[in-house]
Amino acid sequence: MEIKSRIWIEKDGVPFLGYGRIKLLKMIDNKLSINSAAKELKMSYRKAWKLLNEMNLMTEKPIVIKNIGGKDGGGTVLTEYGKQLIQDFETINSNCMDYLEKEFEKLAL
Amino acid sequence: MEIKSRIWIEKDGVPFLGYGRIKLLKMIDNKLSINSAAKELKMSYRKAWKLLNEMNLMTEKPIVIKNIGGKDGGGTVLTEYGKQLIQDFETINSNCMDYLEKEFEKLAL
Repeated sequence: MEIKSRIWIEKDGVPFLGYGRIKLLKMIDNKLSINSAAKELKMSYRKAWKLLNEMNLMTEKPIVIKNIGGKDGGGTVLTEYGKQLIQDFETINSNCMDYLEKEFEKLAL
Repeated sequence: MEIKSRIWIEKDGVPFLGYGRIKLLKMIDNKLSINSAAKELKMSYRKAWKLLNEMNLMTEKPIVIKNIGGKDGGGTVLTEYGKQLIQDFETINSNCMDYLEKEFEKLAL
């Protein structure tokens, strides 16, 4: 027997951050492009943009910055806040799993 | 912002116990009948029986006992183990939520 869990963050009852969005943010941080990140995740650009937009509308601090034009032509980078979101989510998720496994071991299922 | 979680228990990668099955077990404990419990949960008897059967096949200890005939005619009761499952699941779920909320408060999302 094994205990499993999924965590996510809501704002006013609306999903803000979960595994799917964290995956997208991490891929953008890796590819520095929404388009490349979406492709890598087999997601449409439209869908990726919609997810980012939903998140951005929920926070006062921006999560990504889209660079228009320039030498490298319109890449997208995560803000410090965006990076912090990934780190915080992964930390709390991993701590939660450790906690649950310890609690679960105490039971005699 | 609010943290949410769902927990469940698997055996060899197959779901054994989650919110839906706990709800069914609690309703059987309340109604003392699989049929009445299923009706109350707007679930077919066939579906309820399938869920119970799946759980029973995964454990050595029985979870419910079906009384055949007798004065009250074929009711179903939870075994001590079945009751323990509910209690353990609800305890670990509630402890997990307390833990997550405390951890979440520390973050500055």
